[in-house]
Amino acid sequence: MGTTQLESVQEPKYWHLKTVLSEALDSDFAVGAVLPNERDLAARFGVARATLRQALEQLELEGRLHRRRGVGTTVAPPRVGIAVSTAQHDWTGGVADEAWQPIDCATDTAPAAVTAMLDTSAEEQVHVVRRIRVTHGQSVAAELLYIPASSVPELSAIDSPSGPARARSVLRELHRLGLEGQDRSVELGSARADDAKELDRLPGAPVLVVTTRYFAAGGTAAVSVATYRADTCRLTFGDSGALEITHDEQARQAS
Amino acid sequence: MGTTQLESVQEPKYWHLKTVLSEALDSDFAVGAVLPNERDLAARFGVARATLRQALEQLELEGRLHRRRGVGTTVAPPRVGIAVSTAQHDWTGGVADEAWQPIDCATDTAPAAVTAMLDTSAEEQVHVVRRIRVTHGQSVAAELLYIPASSVPELSAIDSPSGPARARSVLRELHRLGLEGQDRSVELGSARADDAKELDRLPGAPVLVVTTRYFAAGGTAAVSVATYRADTCRLTFGDSGALEITHDEQARQAS
Repeated sequence: MGTTQLESVQEPKYWHLKTVLSEALDSDFAVGAVLPNERDLAARFGVARATLRQALEQLELEGRLHRRRGVGTTVAPPRVGIAVSTAQHDWTGGVADEAWQPIDCATDTAPAAVTAMLDTSAEEQVHVVRRIRVTHGQSVAAELLYIPASSVPELSAIDSPSGPARARSVLRELHRLGLEGQDRSVELGSARADDAKELDRLPGAPVLVVTTRYFAAGGTAAVSVATYRADTCRLTFGDSGALEITHDEQARQAS
Repeated sequence: MGTTQLESVQEPKYWHLKTVLSEALDSDFAVGAVLPNERDLAARFGVARATLRQALEQLELEGRLHRRRGVGTTVAPPRVGIAVSTAQHDWTGGVADEAWQPIDCATDTAPAAVTAMLDTSAEEQVHVVRRIRVTHGQSVAAELLYIPASSVPELSAIDSPSGPARARSVLRELHRLGLEGQDRSVELGSARADDAKELDRLPGAPVLVVTTRYFAAGGTAAVSVATYRADTCRLTFGDSGALEITHDEQARQAS
């Protein structure tokens, strides 16, 4: 990483610095390498600490750097592509390698936005299943899945009222419904304290919030609000999911 | 908005403050209302300015607040759902109400990541069409669409070499290819200076970067890198796009 004086550049200084730093990351640093401290970096590039910090923040947004307390700033590995489009995968919990792991279940009211999608009343108690999505041994997403009692009519009331066993019972009943379709939205959010803990992030860290409506039996059978780590995840939406549905449907129609 | 002393709370102070502020926004403020200044707000809630700023930053990430220089902090309207899943829409430029507007075209090399997806060499010149997506009169996304010469073999060389007319010519030729499929990824990014200007944001503002591969004639015909405003947009992915492809395919198979 050479010394570059940025005094004469017309565009915002932090922006140009970001570009220069980005190129330096490509050429001079391996994944996992620790960057020099802020004071040294600022001196090397002839910029104020505030300018350096702005550039580092942007590289963090872009997933190029990780900044952790006590560890410092390290070069991030490329983001991992996480498939979110395969209906069957998310609905049933996926294969062992890339699974949603049920960790808890509670009975509670849903937030107003979820209530509106479920078409339930604000006071109605729903099952709230909490799952963690694990990919290559790392937690990449935390989910709350809201399921009205009407979606799982045959759920046994004598089961334990909470815990992972309860979560599995609720999911088993839910999956007996034939999934008819789904829609999704993705937006930027900040990690809630409980999600942040599961994802090894600080509360308020930027996350990608994926909200999914699952349609079955002519209505909305469940709503999922999943929080993906924005620093390490790239969400992928393929045609493959749609094609799989197509094949399933053709098989069903043919049978 | 009442006075709440937060000294005794165990969870991170900024986090609790964010929750309290969020409720205050729901109950006491209309969309577009200007919040009191930071000093007054900090005093009212009995917190340090730094704590207040952390909470405001998180509410901004969640799309609840807009912060603009000179204007101050205002209550944001709910995010607008922007459909990105309907293949035909993005491919052909969409309907008049929610259109991708071609604004320029250049001949240039593509970034390494795009070159890898297009399966072209690093030195190969491709058409780079720049489009802006406008919804309800507002620019919500800026796009660079990379198109190898091989995807538009009949493009006239005597056209003007750049500008919106050239962009339209390239798109017209591209759309003669039958679209066979697409895949997409969504990740967090920071706005490049040119995109930021189009989107009325500062360079480095958080954006959602949607990368789309368009498949035609057995290969990747084009790659789109679109930058959506993360503060105002919620990206939606419906089943409808997939179902439309299905119907087209069935019709083609039947004919």
